[in-house]
Amino acid sequence: MPRVAIVLSGCGVFDGSEIHEGVSLMLHLSRHGVEYRSFAPNREQMHVVNHLTGQPAPEETRNVLVESARIARGEIAPLDTLNVNDFDALFLPGGFGAAKNLSDFATRGTECSIEPGTERVLREFQSAGKPIGMCCIAPVIAARVFGASGGCSVTIGNDPETAGAIETMGAVHQDRPVTEACVDEANHLVTAPAYMYADAPIHAVYDGIGEMVEKTLELIGAGVR
Amino acid sequence: MPRVAIVLSGCGVFDGSEIHEGVSLMLHLSRHGVEYRSFAPNREQMHVVNHLTGQPAPEETRNVLVESARIARGEIAPLDTLNVNDFDALFLPGGFGAAKNLSDFATRGTECSIEPGTERVLREFQSAGKPIGMCCIAPVIAARVFGASGGCSVTIGNDPETAGAIETMGAVHQDRPVTEACVDEANHLVTAPAYMYADAPIHAVYDGIGEMVEKTLELIGAGVR
Repeated sequence: MPRVAIVLSGCGVFDGSEIHEGVSLMLHLSRHGVEYRSFAPNREQMHVVNHLTGQPAPEETRNVLVESARIARGEIAPLDTLNVNDFDALFLPGGFGAAKNLSDFATRGTECSIEPGTERVLREFQSAGKPIGMCCIAPVIAARVFGASGGCSVTIGNDPETAGAIETMGAVHQDRPVTEACVDEANHLVTAPAYMYADAPIHAVYDGIGEMVEKTLELIGAGVR
Repeated sequence: MPRVAIVLSGCGVFDGSEIHEGVSLMLHLSRHGVEYRSFAPNREQMHVVNHLTGQPAPEETRNVLVESARIARGEIAPLDTLNVNDFDALFLPGGFGAAKNLSDFATRGTECSIEPGTERVLREFQSAGKPIGMCCIAPVIAARVFGASGGCSVTIGNDPETAGAIETMGAVHQDRPVTEACVDEANHLVTAPAYMYADAPIHAVYDGIGEMVEKTLELIGAGVR
């Protein structure tokens, strides 16, 4: 059976990994009999958001790896220990953490930089022809990393502003409903909107992530050089 | 369609609600078309556990309601605003939060006291004949609240120590595998082991919670006086 790596970005939609997306991803992988390992950058979060009020809590600091460990039940390792040779595919769930901790897209938009460890693993999986599945806002990271050099096709649903940013960064955006994934076979990249449809019922998000997982697993082996 | 209330106890297996369990519960309810609302006590957590190391972080304090909001994507209300008349059933997922924040079972065992807001809602749903679904360690709360006055039957899986504590508190323990629920029709109480089987694959935990949800929903209306 395949082995896959998951990169988390904290624990909570507003400052970390979207919890429902991370858990849905793990559920589908487990159901497929796929062994997964979780990783996260060992660095401070951009900030902490009080999820009750939606407001930043400037007096607090939290570490991305330590908070991601909550979703992973403690079974997690620092992102810099992720060795592409150990895995067949890579997954990045969404949540603002992808735009705040794995990149600074939340503050810098199309001029964003990507967290170095995250950029490293994306490039290594891509170079090895191993597929990458991403959902929600995470596809902006692929657009930034791969967009300028030949482009790639991704979806973040149908939000015009974010889709526009993706095209500005050199990628192609394809509209998708919450339950469907976008497959870029040439670049071994599978993306799904998830909670970019913020009002979607949780089971629809789960179904869309299920399609993302299935299509990503189908690409394993297809692109290995 | 029924409306149900969920009581959360923080965000993370070691000091709050078990995240996979909370999300699995919401997924099954959403799939059944059931509207759910989340609640949590507005009080400090017993403590904060660093989920990477498993060790307490004594310099930190977190609020149960604020952290629970992470699982609920901000859609949550203080437990003292929960009105039993607005709901058809009650659910409590597990995680150490049930034994640390909704009760002090983690430190006091069979002599535990129950967080007053939690005890209030349990007694009100029970008195109204409305079913209660609980999983993982949460059934110890039912054992403590209802055990002494006529008893009830619950499962926490097959852990002898916890099962013994449940019997000491006056309830009956029934062994169950991770994918099965224990139904106490007379007391409108449905329980499932979930991560009391700590090494269970996440999809098996999900399936067991699915049975808990289904059996709890079946009891709606059966006990209303």
